[in-house]
Amino acid sequence: MSVLVSNFINGEIVESSSQRNADLFNPANGELRGQVQLSSAEEALAAVEVAKKAQVDWQATPPLQRARVMFRFKALLEDNADELATLISTEHGKVHSDALGELTRGLEVVEFACGIPHLLKGEHSLNVGREIDSYSMMQPVGVCVGITPFNFPVMVPLWMIPVSLACGNSFILKPSEKDPSASLMLAKLLKEAGLPDGVFNVVQGDKEVVDALLEAPDVAAVSFVGSTPIAEAIYSKGSANGKRVQALGGAKNHLVVMPDADLEGATNAIMGAAYGAAGERCMAISVAVAVGDEAADKLVAALKEKVQALRVGPGLGVSPENEMGPLVSEPHMNKVREYIQTGVDQGATLVVDGRDIDTGAPGYFVGGTLFDNVTADMTIYNEEIFGPVLSVVRAKDYQHALELINEHEFGNGTAIFTRDGDTARDFAEKVEIGMVGVNVPIPVPMAFHSFGGWKRSIFGPLNVHGNDGVRFYTRMKTVTARWPKGQRESEFVMPTMK
Amino acid sequence: MSVLVSNFINGEIVESSSQRNADLFNPANGELRGQVQLSSAEEALAAVEVAKKAQVDWQATPPLQRARVMFRFKALLEDNADELATLISTEHGKVHSDALGELTRGLEVVEFACGIPHLLKGEHSLNVGREIDSYSMMQPVGVCVGITPFNFPVMVPLWMIPVSLACGNSFILKPSEKDPSASLMLAKLLKEAGLPDGVFNVVQGDKEVVDALLEAPDVAAVSFVGSTPIAEAIYSKGSANGKRVQALGGAKNHLVVMPDADLEGATNAIMGAAYGAAGERCMAISVAVAVGDEAADKLVAALKEKVQALRVGPGLGVSPENEMGPLVSEPHMNKVREYIQTGVDQGATLVVDGRDIDTGAPGYFVGGTLFDNVTADMTIYNEEIFGPVLSVVRAKDYQHALELINEHEFGNGTAIFTRDGDTARDFAEKVEIGMVGVNVPIPVPMAFHSFGGWKRSIFGPLNVHGNDGVRFYTRMKTVTARWPKGQRESEFVMPTMK
Amino acid sequence: MSVLVSNFINGEIVESSSQRNADLFNPANGELRGQVQLSSAEEALAAVEVAKKAQVDWQATPPLQRARVMFRFKALLEDNADELATLISTEHGKVHSDALGELTRGLEVVEFACGIPHLLKGEHSLNVGREIDSYSMMQPVGVCVGITPFNFPVMVPLWMIPVSLACGNSFILKPSEKDPSASLMLAKLLKEAGLPDGVFNVVQGDKEVVDALLEAPDVAAVSFVGSTPIAEAIYSKGSANGKRVQALGGAKNHLVVMPDADLEGATNAIMGAAYGAAGERCMAISVAVAVGDEAADKLVAALKEKVQALRVGPGLGVSPENEMGPLVSEPHMNKVREYIQTGVDQGATLVVDGRDIDTGAPGYFVGGTLFDNVTADMTIYNEEIFGPVLSVVRAKDYQHALELINEHEFGNGTAIFTRDGDTARDFAEKVEIGMVGVNVPIPVPMAFHSFGGWKRSIFGPLNVHGNDGVRFYTRMKTVTARWPKGQRESEFVMPTMK
Amino acid sequence: MSVLVSNFINGEIVESSSQRNADLFNPANGELRGQVQLSSAEEALAAVEVAKKAQVDWQATPPLQRARVMFRFKALLEDNADELATLISTEHGKVHSDALGELTRGLEVVEFACGIPHLLKGEHSLNVGREIDSYSMMQPVGVCVGITPFNFPVMVPLWMIPVSLACGNSFILKPSEKDPSASLMLAKLLKEAGLPDGVFNVVQGDKEVVDALLEAPDVAAVSFVGSTPIAEAIYSKGSANGKRVQALGGAKNHLVVMPDADLEGATNAIMGAAYGAAGERCMAISVAVAVGDEAADKLVAALKEKVQALRVGPGLGVSPENEMGPLVSEPHMNKVREYIQTGVDQGATLVVDGRDIDTGAPGYFVGGTLFDNVTADMTIYNEEIFGPVLSVVRAKDYQHALELINEHEFGNGTAIFTRDGDTARDFAEKVEIGMVGVNVPIPVPMAFHSFGGWKRSIFGPLNVHGNDGVRFYTRMKTVTARWPKGQRESEFVMPTMK
Repeated sequence: MSVLVSNFINGEIVESSSQRNADLFNPANGELRGQVQLSSAEEALAAVEVAKKAQVDWQATPPLQRARVMFRFKALLEDNADELATLISTEHGKVHSDALGELTRGLEVVEFACGIPHLLKGEHSLNVGREIDSYSMMQPVGVCVGITPFNFPVMVPLWMIPVSLACGNSFILKPSEKDPSASLMLAKLLKEAGLPDGVFNVVQGDKEVVDALLEAPDVAAVSFVGSTPIAEAIYSKGSANGKRVQALGGAKNHLVVMPDADLEGATNAIMGAAYGAAGERCMAISVAVAVGDEAADKLVAALKEKVQALRVGPGLGVSPENEMGPLVSEPHMNKVREYIQTGVDQGATLVVDGRDIDTGAPGYFVGGTLFDNVTADMTIYNEEIFGPVLSVVRAKDYQHALELINEHEFGNGTAIFTRDGDTARDFAEKVEIGMVGVNVPIPVPMAFHSFGGWKRSIFGPLNVHGNDGVRFYTRMKTVTARWPKGQRESEFVMPTMK
Repeated sequence: MSVLVSNFINGEIVESSSQRNADLFNPANGELRGQVQLSSAEEALAAVEVAKKAQVDWQATPPLQRARVMFRFKALLEDNADELATLISTEHGKVHSDALGELTRGLEVVEFACGIPHLLKGEHSLNVGREIDSYSMMQPVGVCVGITPFNFPVMVPLWMIPVSLACGNSFILKPSEKDPSASLMLAKLLKEAGLPDGVFNVVQGDKEVVDALLEAPDVAAVSFVGSTPIAEAIYSKGSANGKRVQALGGAKNHLVVMPDADLEGATNAIMGAAYGAAGERCMAISVAVAVGDEAADKLVAALKEKVQALRVGPGLGVSPENEMGPLVSEPHMNKVREYIQTGVDQGATLVVDGRDIDTGAPGYFVGGTLFDNVTADMTIYNEEIFGPVLSVVRAKDYQHALELINEHEFGNGTAIFTRDGDTARDFAEKVEIGMVGVNVPIPVPMAFHSFGGWKRSIFGPLNVHGNDGVRFYTRMKTVTARWPKGQRESEFVMPTMK
Repeated sequence: MSVLVSNFINGEIVESSSQRNADLFNPANGELRGQVQLSSAEEALAAVEVAKKAQVDWQATPPLQRARVMFRFKALLEDNADELATLISTEHGKVHSDALGELTRGLEVVEFACGIPHLLKGEHSLNVGREIDSYSMMQPVGVCVGITPFNFPVMVPLWMIPVSLACGNSFILKPSEKDPSASLMLAKLLKEAGLPDGVFNVVQGDKEVVDALLEAPDVAAVSFVGSTPIAEAIYSKGSANGKRVQALGGAKNHLVVMPDADLEGATNAIMGAAYGAAGERCMAISVAVAVGDEAADKLVAALKEKVQALRVGPGLGVSPENEMGPLVSEPHMNKVREYIQTGVDQGATLVVDGRDIDTGAPGYFVGGTLFDNVTADMTIYNEEIFGPVLSVVRAKDYQHALELINEHEFGNGTAIFTRDGDTARDFAEKVEIGMVGVNVPIPVPMAFHSFGGWKRSIFGPLNVHGNDGVRFYTRMKTVTARWPKGQRESEFVMPTMK
Repeated sequence: MSVLVSNFINGEIVESSSQRNADLFNPANGELRGQVQLSSAEEALAAVEVAKKAQVDWQATPPLQRARVMFRFKALLEDNADELATLISTEHGKVHSDALGELTRGLEVVEFACGIPHLLKGEHSLNVGREIDSYSMMQPVGVCVGITPFNFPVMVPLWMIPVSLACGNSFILKPSEKDPSASLMLAKLLKEAGLPDGVFNVVQGDKEVVDALLEAPDVAAVSFVGSTPIAEAIYSKGSANGKRVQALGGAKNHLVVMPDADLEGATNAIMGAAYGAAGERCMAISVAVAVGDEAADKLVAALKEKVQALRVGPGLGVSPENEMGPLVSEPHMNKVREYIQTGVDQGATLVVDGRDIDTGAPGYFVGGTLFDNVTADMTIYNEEIFGPVLSVVRAKDYQHALELINEHEFGNGTAIFTRDGDTARDFAEKVEIGMVGVNVPIPVPMAFHSFGGWKRSIFGPLNVHGNDGVRFYTRMKTVTARWPKGQRESEFVMPTMK
């Protein structure tokens, strides 16, 4: 049975009248699952119009009431967790427990947004001058747009949607065309939670829709997560059109293993961080920096054994569950394979070659791949592979490791494994990276903190969710007030004279 | 069928071994409903011991997990709202819709407490000196006690419990012995929400229990709401025993009607604020200050008509619902009647006499009572009656009205009705009252703000719920850290020498 | 004696090797005062290099020490206030008291920045998971650039400089080429206050310098204040180059006079707000919206008398001081005159014609000009004139007045004059403007709040100074930390075995 | 020349009419320096009256203006630092550099208070219900009292005064009668800074004055620093009189030396922390807990050498400066000597005996004293000696060290010296102490954080300075506002009908 993934406009599933579709595959078996419609620019603009109208009443709804929609949405996400996770696995390929984990991290942002009455408070100053007061109101910006990537079809939209909606905005989601089905389920659950029609809308599509949304005068804010070139283009174009934009791009996250690290802990941490979700995470560890050859030798040996033992296969329907599923698409699988060959060609030591894998399943699988002796001039070091390929770089000392990271183009996440307080503190202060783990391999900030990298991993001053998210989705209005005297006395006298 | 209201200790209903009981009545019909056990000091101390032990693990539970107990508790309160409201009405007497309203205000504090991961954040300063950092942790205080009044058997406990628990404390509730049944239902729902046994406990009792809790060395914090003499005694005794205490006392809330006020709006507002819950609210309006005789004449005329038309009777089981139920007990009814007589004796004009009422029901009813020409030297002006008795005071001008309020012993709530921005602003700045309404008769702060009066309506610097509540239920710990150098270099070299 | 205004690089006045200059005039008498050098792109890039190097040590200087530079800077600004104000008046033309007022508003931002140790605090969460902590550090972004307009040669730079520097950034100021001298005095005083060389630099110039700074990879943040077309271009170009940008543009600030307003107060307020600094303020009132013809008639009559009585002339050296000085330049004077003619041509009623003025001085004077019956289709209504020209628009009712404002392209400031709390509150909530005055004609937020408009008056999500300013000039880094166990026990045992 | 230290009331030095005096000595030479007057209860109450009157205008002065008094006060403290430090040394005995250090820490609170316009902001919520807003104002409490100890005659008063005054309160200081002169210099400088007369007052005295202030109805808040028994009594009595009180008491601060610590760093840190100011600091380290005998042996050996080499003598007029001065008084010197004897009697190992010292000066000197093998049952372990006596306790492991600290009555400060991140983190989380140092021996929080211990080292929920200080010195007022409709339309029509 073939699926056709359409739009969600004004509270209803609406089929696009565009004649363009994209195929949807199940990456675990390569089967064609159906199509997603690629909407037209006109349809995108119509969605903006709907969102603009619906936003007026939604803004006037007190934050306390808006929060209660979020409370219900949270409960519905929990009730439907299994179904939603299955949908994620089916289209993205990640294993079921990982899909549930993705959902949980998204859910936490919904929980955060439940606190919006507190989070939206402005500041009140009595007597900025004698009998003059000043106070600020944080009001919604209007219509917001989220353009989200294939690798977290639920979590990344939920970084944006709950905060934006709770602030009183309406929202248009343009999901990835590779795994769009979850977007409609989110829409359905939001409606069920009591969100008024038109406040949340989904427009399926590709560049045509994106461009239309970036040009639409009534779109006030755009949040994007994806690759750096696209992030940069979206930031540039959205900004040129006068919008506020936060655009999150690529990553090449290094994990430094110091000689004093708990090596077993570090190895286990790297395994999950490098190969979980087949490396298709913007916070995946793709470079392990071993400080000193002794640490490197031990680390590579320990990793080799574990990588070879990875259970790779379909993410659904097997027991025990696999540890790693397929890549998202055949072209992406081929691209990852090419990166591996480039690594070999440029002289890196291929310790485990994931191209050899035979899972018995016909999907887009690449096995866990491990390179040693990777250097800073290699392609596999400089580019984001977004696959289960880990490069071990050997640093001669701590300072060398730090410089490697600071000189890399990207600045999303990093981690250091050490027992030494001084090393960890120095690293945390000096590393030019937005999210830093100390003995934590994937230091994704909690929902009540904010997600965001440095350097070319982010464009725009405000991070996602947490207080920054609230600031991004609101406009500040500052009122200064004083009052003419006279009524206090005169009003009393006047009425008796009438 | 007679009820016996017992304790809730360590996750279970536990009968007190004390032989002392107090009778429980249904105030709408005067029938004996059963008994509440009056526990012994030893039982109170045993509860402290249980709470102390349970707190250790609860503190170690991450705030995110503690918040999820609150999320479930909220859902359970909603699911059981009708039952809980019925329990309130049965023992307190207030009408059903009012009981539901009480529950909603309490529920909002639970919603606020769901945001505890954000609310508990400490401050982090990088480089207070070179390579020296400083940060604060807000940790729970330990065992907290709540001593709560009869007039809001659910709302007032919920001002305290969710914030205290979410902060990582354990809690012992000592409810009013007049309407204690709701406390056990709260306990049951908290357990059902996943709160570990022993973290929340209820000890029924009277002064013996209160004294034991105030003396118990392991009780760290005491929150009290009740009358001013008791509040003062509890603050004094608790403080003398080294505890942090917030003790909220009595009120005599004035509502000022300016000549330019929307008279109809003001009249309707006063009706609800003065007679709702039979005036048994610490935020009830018991004094209307009319500025100028013209305003006063009109106001009294408008009020008289409405007071005479009040539907007074049982709070449950009638349709249409009554607007006002009985007083909580026979002694209290008699006391309110005596106050009315004192008003007459001291020369106030009794416009409507609620003592005449015949509701057809045998309960503790006093009808809506309205006095005119009340002056600042009268007993009914100076004391908190806690009944459906409204005093109209005639002020010669705005300044007079303001002075009346500022000179009164109490400082809980007040309101002004005016259209004039200057009058409202001047009043808000200068009135010596903690909670101020501008055209809002009962300005109870929302859960994400804080509840608290001034003057002899509160003892202790911190208000209830909101940020102040979080501060009250936490201890600040400030860490200053730097690290000795040496490992970053030496550790690398050392291992190779081993 | 002719002045030559050069650059300030690395702690010293440095002459530009560029051969390009721009003339500097004294607008009060039209005399050529000297030249300002127009630096080359290479010189701008060299300044970036200097700033980049100096920033490293400055960032490592604890915030407490950075604050102390601001404390001294404040004292020096106060000590040199008269000299600085004279410099402003000489090149800009505004009267001395107004120049002192400008300085005071700038000084207040320095005072705000003295609190940077408190303002820079990150958030600290204990136990985001069991034994896992998370905390944020707000670190400087690096090299910041300020591009500032002629109308506030001291205040606008001081909106940016103190906050940026206190956050640990270095700063490059590109002042207006019309009144650049004050920038060098700020530089000198900062140095005297103890700011290390290279942390603050001034590059004089025009578009060549601006473009170079917008393209320089090492510039991290750009703050701009000026006209909307330039603001938009700078936001677009800076954003395309990956920088964070806040760009503040033009304004057309409406002041609504309600029929119940204190007319005398409103008239006086409008006089200062419309004609102060000859209207060359982005927060000047250029449109008075009178609600109802009766209010309009009275307002125009009252204004006419006062406008005709305005003392216009040189800003320095006369007693009593003039109320209004010249425009900044001859071309700008001519442009304002043309706007007046356009107003006449398009049918507005010219009540007072400032073109007739004869101040006896040869400077660039236009007298106070008043139009009545201006409508929304006229050029003088739609464009920012930046001169002493006030348009009175007659609105048929409050709703009409509100719509006029909301439909205007700009959204900087606005004000309403009324006594009615409801009107003021409705206006404050619904007007689509960033800074709102209630009976305050120029509602510039205090330094500890933030300055910023809405719509096409600002580009970028963060306002200037206040908490937003701190956020703009910092990058968030979020650390998640846990530690491997084992040392607590083993370390104790190990040493004794050595 | 003999001094007579009097009161400072309403802007002037006022001699007490009380006939009671206390002698003032120079502890470095034992000479009688003069007298301090011991005021009467009536004089204390008169000061309250003065402070109450002056507070009214001071509260009405905008925070921005109040801050500017603090800015000037800071400059004056810097200008007079040497004189003030000399005064401290003369009466207290501490060496000059230490007195300057004390002043700096006090000055930092003045710097913090300069940010009061930002710190005083309340919260503003738009639409808590439809068209209902709520906001909070943080208003001063009224008359505040500070009762301060001899050991920091400038710093501890400055913990309180700047924050209290900046919040809009008036303040009465009751300094220690051992070193009261600095209080008058603070008063003089505050006046010079522009503080209006009567807002700050000093009343010299003893228990009579303290009791009068604790009973005065117009005193709203009391801050105390001193010994635990007095702190407890003041908290109890002040609370019983309805005041808010923060009372800070004694300490017994442990410093844990882990086997992996930087021993040299730890030893140097302990020397300063144990013997600086002759141990008369509430944050002095009086117990060093060495974990493991090997660490203990090394530590004691290293300390012994350094303690024997301590330069002890007068704090003024010698070069090179001494490292440690005399104790504050002869009785205190004798008490410290008795403690040393008790230590010997109870079986502790006296490694260095400070009683033997001969400084050549006739003052109240006790040399640096070092005990080893101190155990938890000894008097010198359990009581606060407040002298240069360091006890080394040998713990068998980390857990033992932690338990020692947690079981001690006091909870002011503590420190751990280790390189291990896990040990430090575990200690910081679990130690029951308010201020924790990680490789920092005296972890006094910065002015923008808050000072306060746990357990019997503090009474009251709010710490001193930082945000807590602002909260302590303010009362929250929460306004809820809505407005009657009608004027927006009718006002427009009405005037034309007149």
